[in-house]
Amino acid sequence: MTKKREFPLAQVYGLLEPGPVVLVTTARAGRTNIMPMSWHTMMEFVPPLVGCVISNQNYTFEVLRATGECVINVPTVELAKKVVDCGNASGQTVDKFKIFGLTPVAASLVEAPLIAECYASLECKVIDRKLVTQYNFFILEVVKAWMDPRRKRPLTIHHQGEGVFVVPGRMIKLPSLKTSLRTK
Amino acid sequence: MTKKREFPLAQVYGLLEPGPVVLVTTARAGRTNIMPMSWHTMMEFVPPLVGCVISNQNYTFEVLRATGECVINVPTVELAKKVVDCGNASGQTVDKFKIFGLTPVAASLVEAPLIAECYASLECKVIDRKLVTQYNFFILEVVKAWMDPRRKRPLTIHHQGEGVFVVPGRMIKLPSLKTSLRTK
Repeated sequence: MTKKREFPLAQVYGLLEPGPVVLVTTARAGRTNIMPMSWHTMMEFVPPLVGCVISNQNYTFEVLRATGECVINVPTVELAKKVVDCGNASGQTVDKFKIFGLTPVAASLVEAPLIAECYASLECKVIDRKLVTQYNFFILEVVKAWMDPRRKRPLTIHHQGEGVFVVPGRMIKLPSLKTSLRTK
Repeated sequence: MTKKREFPLAQVYGLLEPGPVVLVTTARAGRTNIMPMSWHTMMEFVPPLVGCVISNQNYTFEVLRATGECVINVPTVELAKKVVDCGNASGQTVDKFKIFGLTPVAASLVEAPLIAECYASLECKVIDRKLVTQYNFFILEVVKAWMDPRRKRPLTIHHQGEGVFVVPGRMIKLPSLKTSLRTK
């Protein structure tokens, strides 16, 4: 991870709260995979907890359930085509890192790889499976966070359904907000 | 609801998946309240299920737990200042509709009011409380959806932490995406 530096866990919520599409990586027995995901939410600031829905139709579901580990990688707009391609292929039959030209980088605390091309990567462990069977809902704890500090305004991609995405436009600062919106 | 029309439940995910700040309204014994929220995720397409974290420090937490009903209203950028104001006041002491000049409109299937100024409103019932005590996490079913059909590209607001918000900018269409990103 030459470009990314460790990032404070307390600031992780600002990466995921605005709702970017992320790429979830997993690994089992040396075999890695990548899956795009938009159904996620922050659940706690510190340690950062992330709730997410991963369909049991997906190869990633089985691997995540078996290994209890993944990495949430945050891509920017340059990677939009590859994100969609990752969603249209299955890790059961192809090596998505290889066919889509993405670079796996060893993580620090989990087996799943970071994606070098993504500006931020969050190493995660599954900490709660109570809603996995009924809703495919996993609760992850972010145990290590990485971010490229050179990216000041990363253009994340936000899925609006049916293949339509938007990237962030105008920024608004409303500093009268005392703390996070979530706590009010 | 003169401006809003009923909206197909199967399309609700496209409103919430990109991660907008929403305004949650509740009502108990004729007393209404409004709370901004960013920690939410889609959990199912049809019926649309939404998971969300509402802190037990909030007045809304107690009312939602007691009544099992709320409305998720989606504001646009013109309302950004009011959204922040709603987050900085407590419904325990003030009537936010009155002091912030927002208009309550009777919902169809729940007691909580719709906010007329928001371009979309989703009437919701709590259907699962298994994670409420441990994580303040409610699962809601959207039972009726309303949207203003005149709003073609609503500029929703997305919280990036510490009072910084972005609105949608450039749109990208990648129609090779066969279905929802979530199902891959």
